Amino acid sequence: MTSRWEEFYATHLPPSDFEDNRSLLKEFCDRHNKLAKRIVLITSGGTTVPLEHNTVRFVDNFSAGNRGAASAEYFLDHDYCVIFLYRQKSLEPFTRHFSGQRLLDMLDIHSTSGNTTISVKPDSVDILEPVLENYKAAREGGKILYITFTTLSDYFWLLRASCECLRVFKERALLYLAAAVSDFYIPPSEIPTHKIQSSLGGPSIQLQLVPKLLAPLVDSWVPHAFIVSFKLETDESILIQKGREALNRYKHKLVICNMLQSRRQRVVFVSLENSIEIALTKEQLLNGIEIEDSIVENVIANHDQFLTSS
Amino acid sequence: MTSRWEEFYATHLPPSDFEDNRSLLKEFCDRHNKLAKRIVLITSGGTTVPLEHNTVRFVDNFSAGNRGAASAEYFLDHDYCVIFLYRQKSLEPFTRHFSGQRLLDMLDIHSTSGNTTISVKPDSVDILEPVLENYKAAREGGKILYITFTTLSDYFWLLRASCECLRVFKERALLYLAAAVSDFYIPPSEIPTHKIQSSLGGPSIQLQLVPKLLAPLVDSWVPHAFIVSFKLETDESILIQKGREALNRYKHKLVICNMLQSRRQRVVFVSLENSIEIALTKEQLLNGIEIEDSIVENVIANHDQFLTSS
Repeated sequence: MTSRWEEFYATHLPPSDFEDNRSLLKEFCDRHNKLAKRIVLITSGGTTVPLEHNTVRFVDNFSAGNRGAASAEYFLDHDYCVIFLYRQKSLEPFTRHFSGQRLLDMLDIHSTSGNTTISVKPDSVDILEPVLENYKAAREGGKILYITFTTLSDYFWLLRASCECLRVFKERALLYLAAAVSDFYIPPSEIPTHKIQSSLGGPSIQLQLVPKLLAPLVDSWVPHAFIVSFKLETDESILIQKGREALNRYKHKLVICNMLQSRRQRVVFVSLENSIEIALTKEQLLNGIEIEDSIVENVIANHDQFLTSS
Repeated sequence: MTSRWEEFYATHLPPSDFEDNRSLLKEFCDRHNKLAKRIVLITSGGTTVPLEHNTVRFVDNFSAGNRGAASAEYFLDHDYCVIFLYRQKSLEPFTRHFSGQRLLDMLDIHSTSGNTTISVKPDSVDILEPVLENYKAAREGGKILYITFTTLSDYFWLLRASCECLRVFKERALLYLAAAVSDFYIPPSEIPTHKIQSSLGGPSIQLQLVPKLLAPLVDSWVPHAFIVSFKLETDESILIQKGREALNRYKHKLVICNMLQSRRQRVVFVSLENSIEIALTKEQLLNGIEIEDSIVENVIANHDQFLTSS
């Protein structure tokens, strides 16, 4: 009998650039595995569920991608190499600090006798320089690989391919599953080809449950890796319970629970042993301290312990 | 009897920063109206329809916002002042040319005896300089006002407020409605408060028709303005017919019809008098010519004629 996740792969084609991405993943993993490095796969941003094959409309999950993008920077600080598997156009490490017009506003044009140069305004150098240094170091050292998805189906294909390449790292691989993956989808056979016409009135959309990938991931794709998932809720009263349920069902290592409304100030680490809260004070928030700094530090401490004991 | 659009406003609160945006719109319009300038309101990007009040999930419309953002640049070239009403995080004029890491990759850090400067690499100056010049001219001249929306309801409130400020321009106002506005929504009374739980199985979502704002817009908000709407379809066989239906129903000036698959190469201008195709050759596309250049030129020619005849 095929499981629900196997059926999902059987009924959804891989994204068009899948083989290119698989080659990039393999090259990246082989190179860093030879150096016996630690590696983290970070998933980030929301997945889309198309309502039409020629897609004009889709269901999306709220996620700007800041948690994943910020965490990638902190993992690089701790000498992990990073696969950053993220929703196209969601926030990226480094560039996230300069969204919209901020970079253009930092630039001055100088023209002297027919020669034009463009430079960063002196008072913006202090803000830009440390980020740019880290960006260049990560890029030139080949320490981060960027892979993008848009739809739920893209995400499924790329997550499995990533795991296949990560297997060789065994316990040195860390999975940090921060993407907001849809719980619901519409099977391809029930999706109309063309844009739904409003002349027919408001449509009714029947969604189905998405199979949970944590099961095959823990059991067979990367059985030796240290796996961390996230749980986002809007109702505090069920938050920790939902996290513990996930942990008991999938037997991975850690669930990081957070509320939509307070996700930048407070998270709870739920493991088989205990629940530990990490929170920022108001002062820390005002000083621009990011909770991802503490989250990553604590996750790595857990990974250290896991590596020692295994 | 209240109309459907009046009922929509009665059941949806304005966005939290509504009064601030209304002040900005009023100041911008009053300033440019005194100078007897022409003005264009460009709407751009897709609207969201929340599936939960504490929104984790929403229905979205496909639109990166390139048509609106590119068109804004061309309208500025033709000395229109521009209200750019766009989906938060969708493409913006000027910055759209440097998405992702492109700007960071153009920068070099120089350190000499404790003094750090950052400048644009010489071979990137030619690409960056013309865009940066135009960006600075628009910003310093106060010729463009950026206003953002996310939800369908935000869009409704901000569009009406924009029209109220645009009224004084009479025939000099041009509305260029390129946003991908949802045709469907869920009334607030039928939206659950918290994140829908997957333990209850896949939900069924009943969508209702969104009232069309073109009707009050043409009839009472800006009855003297030159109004252009867009029609996007995925099925060629109904494209022109849908455009003409819209024109006959709302009695505005122009519908620009385009297919999802070929929208960067070909559009059809549908007016009461005729249908005129605008298309780029393969060579033009390869040379980086944008169809928005021709679209804006043709729209302005229509606006010229309208101003002369009225």
